[in-house]
Amino acid sequence: MSKLHEKCGVFGVYGTERQSARLIMFGLTALQHRGQESAGIAVCDTDGEKGNIFCHKGMGLVSEVFHAGIADKLYGNIGVGHVRYSTTGASSIENAQPVTFNYIKGTLATVHNGNLTNTDELREALLKEGLVFRSDTDTEVLASLIAKERASCGSIEEAVKRASKRLKGSYAVIVMSPRKLVAVRDPYGLKPLCLGRVGDTYVIASESCALSSVGAKLIRDIAPGEILTVSADGLSSEFNSVSQKHAHCVFEYIYFARLDSKIDGVDVYSARFKSGEALAESAPVKADIVTGVPDSGLTAAMGYSSRSGIPFALAFHKNSYLGRTFIKPTEKERSSAVKLKLNVIESVVKGKDIVLIDDSIVRGTTIANLIKDLKAAGAGRVHVRISSPPFLYPCFYGTDVPDNSALIANANNTEEIRKRIGADSLYYARIEDLKRMTGDLPLCSACFDGKYPVD
Amino acid sequence: MSKLHEKCGVFGVYGTERQSARLIMFGLTALQHRGQESAGIAVCDTDGEKGNIFCHKGMGLVSEVFHAGIADKLYGNIGVGHVRYSTTGASSIENAQPVTFNYIKGTLATVHNGNLTNTDELREALLKEGLVFRSDTDTEVLASLIAKERASCGSIEEAVKRASKRLKGSYAVIVMSPRKLVAVRDPYGLKPLCLGRVGDTYVIASESCALSSVGAKLIRDIAPGEILTVSADGLSSEFNSVSQKHAHCVFEYIYFARLDSKIDGVDVYSARFKSGEALAESAPVKADIVTGVPDSGLTAAMGYSSRSGIPFALAFHKNSYLGRTFIKPTEKERSSAVKLKLNVIESVVKGKDIVLIDDSIVRGTTIANLIKDLKAAGAGRVHVRISSPPFLYPCFYGTDVPDNSALIANANNTEEIRKRIGADSLYYARIEDLKRMTGDLPLCSACFDGKYPVD
Amino acid sequence: MSKLHEKCGVFGVYGTERQSARLIMFGLTALQHRGQESAGIAVCDTDGEKGNIFCHKGMGLVSEVFHAGIADKLYGNIGVGHVRYSTTGASSIENAQPVTFNYIKGTLATVHNGNLTNTDELREALLKEGLVFRSDTDTEVLASLIAKERASCGSIEEAVKRASKRLKGSYAVIVMSPRKLVAVRDPYGLKPLCLGRVGDTYVIASESCALSSVGAKLIRDIAPGEILTVSADGLSSEFNSVSQKHAHCVFEYIYFARLDSKIDGVDVYSARFKSGEALAESAPVKADIVTGVPDSGLTAAMGYSSRSGIPFALAFHKNSYLGRTFIKPTEKERSSAVKLKLNVIESVVKGKDIVLIDDSIVRGTTIANLIKDLKAAGAGRVHVRISSPPFLYPCFYGTDVPDNSALIANANNTEEIRKRIGADSLYYARIEDLKRMTGDLPLCSACFDGKYPVD
Amino acid sequence: MSKLHEKCGVFGVYGTERQSARLIMFGLTALQHRGQESAGIAVCDTDGEKGNIFCHKGMGLVSEVFHAGIADKLYGNIGVGHVRYSTTGASSIENAQPVTFNYIKGTLATVHNGNLTNTDELREALLKEGLVFRSDTDTEVLASLIAKERASCGSIEEAVKRASKRLKGSYAVIVMSPRKLVAVRDPYGLKPLCLGRVGDTYVIASESCALSSVGAKLIRDIAPGEILTVSADGLSSEFNSVSQKHAHCVFEYIYFARLDSKIDGVDVYSARFKSGEALAESAPVKADIVTGVPDSGLTAAMGYSSRSGIPFALAFHKNSYLGRTFIKPTEKERSSAVKLKLNVIESVVKGKDIVLIDDSIVRGTTIANLIKDLKAAGAGRVHVRISSPPFLYPCFYGTDVPDNSALIANANNTEEIRKRIGADSLYYARIEDLKRMTGDLPLCSACFDGKYPVD
Repeated sequence: MSKLHEKCGVFGVYGTERQSARLIMFGLTALQHRGQESAGIAVCDTDGEKGNIFCHKGMGLVSEVFHAGIADKLYGNIGVGHVRYSTTGASSIENAQPVTFNYIKGTLATVHNGNLTNTDELREALLKEGLVFRSDTDTEVLASLIAKERASCGSIEEAVKRASKRLKGSYAVIVMSPRKLVAVRDPYGLKPLCLGRVGDTYVIASESCALSSVGAKLIRDIAPGEILTVSADGLSSEFNSVSQKHAHCVFEYIYFARLDSKIDGVDVYSARFKSGEALAESAPVKADIVTGVPDSGLTAAMGYSSRSGIPFALAFHKNSYLGRTFIKPTEKERSSAVKLKLNVIESVVKGKDIVLIDDSIVRGTTIANLIKDLKAAGAGRVHVRISSPPFLYPCFYGTDVPDNSALIANANNTEEIRKRIGADSLYYARIEDLKRMTGDLPLCSACFDGKYPVD
Repeated sequence: MSKLHEKCGVFGVYGTERQSARLIMFGLTALQHRGQESAGIAVCDTDGEKGNIFCHKGMGLVSEVFHAGIADKLYGNIGVGHVRYSTTGASSIENAQPVTFNYIKGTLATVHNGNLTNTDELREALLKEGLVFRSDTDTEVLASLIAKERASCGSIEEAVKRASKRLKGSYAVIVMSPRKLVAVRDPYGLKPLCLGRVGDTYVIASESCALSSVGAKLIRDIAPGEILTVSADGLSSEFNSVSQKHAHCVFEYIYFARLDSKIDGVDVYSARFKSGEALAESAPVKADIVTGVPDSGLTAAMGYSSRSGIPFALAFHKNSYLGRTFIKPTEKERSSAVKLKLNVIESVVKGKDIVLIDDSIVRGTTIANLIKDLKAAGAGRVHVRISSPPFLYPCFYGTDVPDNSALIANANNTEEIRKRIGADSLYYARIEDLKRMTGDLPLCSACFDGKYPVD
Repeated sequence: MSKLHEKCGVFGVYGTERQSARLIMFGLTALQHRGQESAGIAVCDTDGEKGNIFCHKGMGLVSEVFHAGIADKLYGNIGVGHVRYSTTGASSIENAQPVTFNYIKGTLATVHNGNLTNTDELREALLKEGLVFRSDTDTEVLASLIAKERASCGSIEEAVKRASKRLKGSYAVIVMSPRKLVAVRDPYGLKPLCLGRVGDTYVIASESCALSSVGAKLIRDIAPGEILTVSADGLSSEFNSVSQKHAHCVFEYIYFARLDSKIDGVDVYSARFKSGEALAESAPVKADIVTGVPDSGLTAAMGYSSRSGIPFALAFHKNSYLGRTFIKPTEKERSSAVKLKLNVIESVVKGKDIVLIDDSIVRGTTIANLIKDLKAAGAGRVHVRISSPPFLYPCFYGTDVPDNSALIANANNTEEIRKRIGADSLYYARIEDLKRMTGDLPLCSACFDGKYPVD
Repeated sequence: MSKLHEKCGVFGVYGTERQSARLIMFGLTALQHRGQESAGIAVCDTDGEKGNIFCHKGMGLVSEVFHAGIADKLYGNIGVGHVRYSTTGASSIENAQPVTFNYIKGTLATVHNGNLTNTDELREALLKEGLVFRSDTDTEVLASLIAKERASCGSIEEAVKRASKRLKGSYAVIVMSPRKLVAVRDPYGLKPLCLGRVGDTYVIASESCALSSVGAKLIRDIAPGEILTVSADGLSSEFNSVSQKHAHCVFEYIYFARLDSKIDGVDVYSARFKSGEALAESAPVKADIVTGVPDSGLTAAMGYSSRSGIPFALAFHKNSYLGRTFIKPTEKERSSAVKLKLNVIESVVKGKDIVLIDDSIVRGTTIANLIKDLKAAGAGRVHVRISSPPFLYPCFYGTDVPDNSALIANANNTEEIRKRIGADSLYYARIEDLKRMTGDLPLCSACFDGKYPVD
């Protein structure tokens, strides 16, 4: 694993037509970058037999799990969907979402993006009350907690409110009861969640790109701590807590989110472009071209080019046909230069001094190989600029990073890293530069500075 | 079909290790953009039992056809491979390549990129001699012709030479006999074919990007009309004709070939970049940003930006998870704005006048939709620049274009097309601009000017 | 559905080698006749990390679900397995067994053959305590109940004992805790369950044929009401109730069980043979040959032949290649005599008066067609003898019969049925004849006489 | 391989409705016992565009290859189909039938059961004329020969006639030209082929059981040496040779053919029953029961029972769920008594002296294991009776037998074999007993007596 990984994407629909599953399938396709391990959809008909949930989930891409018209057979006007990226070894259908079950008040389907930090404690409490768990996921714990609260209160939204008071960590959740959709976001707003509309259908999604993909307009982001209910009575909203301290995950802007999304008021493309501008100011250098590691480094590279005046160019071609089943070269083949994913465009780099932008360095092996390839193709100096600060602290909120020993920044200072990766110069963005990306938006940058929003 | 399609990619290996099938698999993966319908590999052991060919082919991507270690089981130190794009309805395993058979002199495996224009005549002649055909392909005709010639001459290279004298049209062919690899290119050089080496292994491929992908260095292009033989004695070469009139397919540079390939001495990236420069000179316009239709229009857009000084930006995000099994929106869904492939990055285009570059216009529907999306996202004027001249004449050499009635340029002049697609201005590259891309390289641009290299 | 269906087969292993999953796979293959809808295996290593269960289940035959070496990867020296026949429309992976989960005391895996009659009541009680259910099965209710009891008692066998006191209906259950295997059978012994041994490995199975298939010797049947525990300390046993009224399901002997099984001391082959003998005495007739409907009627036919002296012959050939994916003829094709499953052997039946034995008549359509086929092939008189009494009462213990309206015996007397099916004579076994099959063994024959063992 | 194998089943239809492919699919299902490696169907519309053949073939059972409505999409009123049993290692789709191709006179589809003994010679001659071959099969040679002859004569039936004069060996062939079906059988009648009719549709099949399966009545067998043409003009017939010496393969009656078939006037069931009667006369013994090895030995066992008066019983249960994907026990598992295919019914054999009938002994390992199982279950003496003479000579006509070294009868006399397999007595049918099965029908029994019908 040479990249950081986000855990999940969620999508919900409250509409008037029974084909909500198709809309969810398209929305999940737009969120596919947030998780390729499993996909699932649960739908329900608000006018149908109460609590009759149709659910389908499976391992793989949305297009694989919902092949052959499967989504067409899931009837319902409301529904939730999920794409999952596994952060642990437990890549199994048991862990796929939505989590659906029958409980004392009927049926419930839950999808979740984020990471609870008090899962063990909550699970322990629920186990003591006699509950059983089929999976390892915090989502099942969360869903069980909501069900438990619902048993002793008057509405699903009240149950979500009560349950969320006991949750610690990050969560963007959509719950489907047979008649309502309830969305809730953690009080810090760590994980993104937004609301849109197309015709008379409400749509909730992890990112606005999924709204646009189904033709919906972004209405607004769900606020940190907000519990938003969509029902036959329209929208209603309340807050479970009054934390004024928000802390949006900075990695959404640096790497996770799609280029065409707008999250908590900030355009992702602009944020990345500005991060490149900031680098051009803080770490200028003389060079012939600026380029980025495809795809995530390209936008920052354009920003660097714009501010520095050094022309932007594409130095690598990325093979877009390497699917999940792609047969990887063996160690021996790699050492004899078989390389399939990124290939240097020799005519672009030959005899040129290059600024190479990437969003982060995790282990350092990928960038080291790319620099070697550039030099082998005749490049002159290679100046590396990273659009985020060094990764020094673990993330407890759902970003999947290798353990400390694998993080190159943990054991090496910048100069040591530069030597290791073979760059002629190396600069990281400074923590103070992050503001350049997102303006006044309060960020969680604990992975860089160790300042966790929650105790 | 809104894009032109090339037919095939070919790849051949003459090495010393028995795992040539893996090398071919990787090479074909790098050529996957030339054909996604079927893939196949045939290998042979020059030291093994004479003529014992191991062949596997199937429908789908290379990674699908050669899943689960299939390539590991094809033992042989020489081999040929093929990826196919079907230009007709006959998408069937019968038409997949390599074409392999037993004949009077042993076994033969043949792969072919191109299109013979006298297939019917050749087939008729062979039928009269009692031959039978299992497929509709000109490749089977070509292979049968080579086999027939081999029966009455002394070597496979001589047979290829004799057969090629009877061929009309375009062809880049690799033939594997149990002991040799013979590559041949049509006298005009319409289809690309090049030679490389990694260690003591010779590699032949449609494009140089496939050489780099397996770590091989480009030695040279196979010359038009050349018959190159690789055997235990090394390389030998002769020519089947003395046509001095070469005519390389211009569309390789405009659209077909991969950005990191070098074909007949011309870098594809540079050619596209220069085509953008030429457009900036011949069709300048005032605008805020220059962008391209991903992925094929992006390089020309950078060239236009470089020459015009108007900043380059990405206006569309392309979803890279839409595989072959992707479920397409229905007409109704599309009309309610479900769109999954290309999504406008609103923050880039809002309030901006835009130069939009694409490589060609076939039917006009794709570009019309993109312009509509740009305007819906708040773009101002949209000036379209096409990096090739209007497509006016059919291609007989293997480029798959819709019939005349579907070609927008056939029934409309440029102003009519501009109105239809909703652009604020529209300019095509001029035929004389093509020289800008490729310098003195003699081109076949019959699709634009009707001047066919062959009678 | 023209046949009665049993619900499930269960299999458990307590051994010393880690490959128990393979043994279970073979055992389930021998129980495949008890259910073809889904198959599953859960194993655990008693010396390994506590509670680490490996489970795999899927839709289809054992050989389909455990293809490609899947069982080889499930490591553990103890385990349970299950084959399921769906009696409802809910043919879904959610309902496949084993049911596995984590609970307050660790992990639990449960397999169940039978049908609880107080599922709704138990489920309601558990729902009220906050439990949630992922499936429709009574097995999940049963497993949750055991988990609940275990939370407040000292051992898993005690928990099974307490839980079983609350169960009504039929059940043959095997529970795997991380260190023990606990088998329990309902107080009436409605469903079969037996114990065997091979080397130092204990094996528990629905039928003794599964013991023989893995080389194990039958030790004894689990007694009605017995709770048998297999652990590192060997076998131990106690009883949850003292019902002296046993009631073994008569249909195991008539149709469900495999010919080579011995259940509760009675050989299935002998039972069926004797049922034919009884019919020969109670309903004799003059004929040339005796035959049976393959495969279930053949053994009784041999018994009829033996007692009557009329020669036994095969009148039908059964096509053994009609798997689950078999394409069935349309109504029109059937009416034009396309028939694939059973074909008359004309040379056997031509000009002969025939005694035709089957085990039961459900709808009457199958036997009517067979009689028509026999007559079309030149048979003379066809005398039908059924080795069980008419099916008049619903089964609440897990035998899947069509609802009353479809049961031919419900709306018709024997003479009317005879006319409908086109037989020359028709006799059913009498309820008093059932004793002939099984001797003194107390039977549940509620489906024939309405005398249910439970209130 | 412990059983002899026949190579193929063929089926042809000339009808008036376009759904002939479905009829062929059902017919092939009834012939599935003749080959399970691959299946294929080719159809044509006699009123459609001339020579437009629709063909589908694949590896596996008919129900697997023609899953998901594939046969419904093959439109045509005439057609041919094939099931194949591979006798060599070359189990590949290239070798599947029908063989279809285009040739000078249009299109041709050919299916073949049998084995040409002069394939090499014919292939060599065709190779010299420039033909190429895609497969290893004699069927492709045969089809090419017919095509070649057709080029220089006036009709397809004349071409088949001319071609068949050059064929040596066994063949039952159906050829489909765009307007006609031509069936031909070798002059000795080694392989079966018969004609039937349902409504106004003519049906040709390897065995009459396939006629009955589609509701067709057997009209007659195709005569040895006959060339039968079905066309719009009805039936016409001629003979390619006047051999009066017929030689029908004896193994069709002993083992290959289905119990409900009638071949060349002899009922298969009766033949096998009589072979048992003959054994009872030639090799009587005192015993308690007679049984057979399922399924092939059962009918002879009934005959033995009938003649000897010893009661017939089933001693083994055969698991009918062991499909092609069945996971076989390892050597070690088998040695610890895991056995899945045939299980002894202990209650039948305990304390009994047994006559055990099988159709043949190839290697002797199967019967040795069964005898061991019987004794382990408490059987007394086991007297083996084999319904065919010892297999001493190779078959050149398509029956797949292991090479000599594996044949137990080659290196051992009857007494030695008896000891090896652990039987208490062993008798084979005598060559003169074969007449008892089939009356005056001239047989090929070369495998027993070395008297080959062809030189």
